[in-house]
Amino acid sequence: MKQNIRVAVDAVVFGYKNDELNVLLIKRKVAPFQGSWAIPGGLVKEEESLETAVERELKEETNVTIDYLEQLYSFGAPNRDPRNRVISVAYFALVKPSHHDIKADTDAQDVAWFPTNNLPKLAFDHDIILEKAKTRLRNKLTYEPIGFDLLSTKFLFSDLEKLYMTILEKKIDRRNFRKKIMSFDILEELDEKVSEGRGRPANLFKFNKKQYFKLQKEGFLFDIK
Amino acid sequence: MKQNIRVAVDAVVFGYKNDELNVLLIKRKVAPFQGSWAIPGGLVKEEESLETAVERELKEETNVTIDYLEQLYSFGAPNRDPRNRVISVAYFALVKPSHHDIKADTDAQDVAWFPTNNLPKLAFDHDIILEKAKTRLRNKLTYEPIGFDLLSTKFLFSDLEKLYMTILEKKIDRRNFRKKIMSFDILEELDEKVSEGRGRPANLFKFNKKQYFKLQKEGFLFDIK
Repeated sequence: MKQNIRVAVDAVVFGYKNDELNVLLIKRKVAPFQGSWAIPGGLVKEEESLETAVERELKEETNVTIDYLEQLYSFGAPNRDPRNRVISVAYFALVKPSHHDIKADTDAQDVAWFPTNNLPKLAFDHDIILEKAKTRLRNKLTYEPIGFDLLSTKFLFSDLEKLYMTILEKKIDRRNFRKKIMSFDILEELDEKVSEGRGRPANLFKFNKKQYFKLQKEGFLFDIK
Repeated sequence: MKQNIRVAVDAVVFGYKNDELNVLLIKRKVAPFQGSWAIPGGLVKEEESLETAVERELKEETNVTIDYLEQLYSFGAPNRDPRNRVISVAYFALVKPSHHDIKADTDAQDVAWFPTNNLPKLAFDHDIILEKAKTRLRNKLTYEPIGFDLLSTKFLFSDLEKLYMTILEKKIDRRNFRKKIMSFDILEELDEKVSEGRGRPANLFKFNKKQYFKLQKEGFLFDIK
């Protein structure tokens, strides 16, 4: 069978900035949608894996270093690209604040973080891809500790609370939330304090990933509902 | 950029037969892996959506009628097909007992249900795809009522219990399970009884999908953990 379909990868890259969920967008250098904002991505090379293709495209367009990557969904509607049929295997990625610095590289005209609740019009069907990624992130936050890949290595407990409230878009019962998270035994409370606003200095925490993987092997379920 | 990658769809089709999780396999008619068992699938046509391609391939190879379909994951390792690079967008599907009858059609040499714990050697990377589908089904069973798409429209409560124990591969506390499921208010207890084995006649149940969608809109979370 003759088949003229191309395969691309695209990545929805999330960062948590100024207490808001942000997404990394590039300004397209070439037609179609030249000058429009889009999620980073491009065609897969024949000899590279899909993951390698995502990482290469992110490097070529945004120079970002990602802290977490997983496949999201494949988008294949016949007319999603005006040139010819392109199937996009979309990924979603998370970036810690220490990696928020980005700069457009050869393949993009510009690159910037945008709060997800204040986005420009996006190229192609990228609004649909982004919506799917937001839903995945929101769901996953409740059953896997991936939120820590959006926070600095050391964080205040209140940062974690705010992150959950922001992304889940709802108030959480702070006392229950703390009790639950602490009962999991996956956070280390450090001997370092910082002052935030007018409050008393508070202790910094660190996510103990090794401990989490150990507990997970023993059947432990992370569950924030 | 020149690109010589083809796009296929494959489907892991699950049925629940003789108290076991089964998967629908076809015997390949052509090389490579001629005569080997494989999950059904094939190349996407240029003008059809990915879902249409899955449904067409299932019809052409197995004649099965499916009751549930969702995209699973895309598999794109460079050497997964000995001919040339093929990316497979894999789906998983569920089939109710009333649709278990199947027969090989033009594009397959044979077609059969196999218990997932007693499988022949599979073509390509289909063992990896199947494993991913089993994990998805197992997880999804705990947070969405998709198990009903593996049961007859009318079923005994004990059938539902057995289904969960079989697929989750663990004992469940029957009393808690029943209490939980009944508290969701998504099952209708019918005025029909059947006898099973030596036990007393038991009532048949029906899943009320409309009620589930209504509750879901109101924020209800199906949750069996």
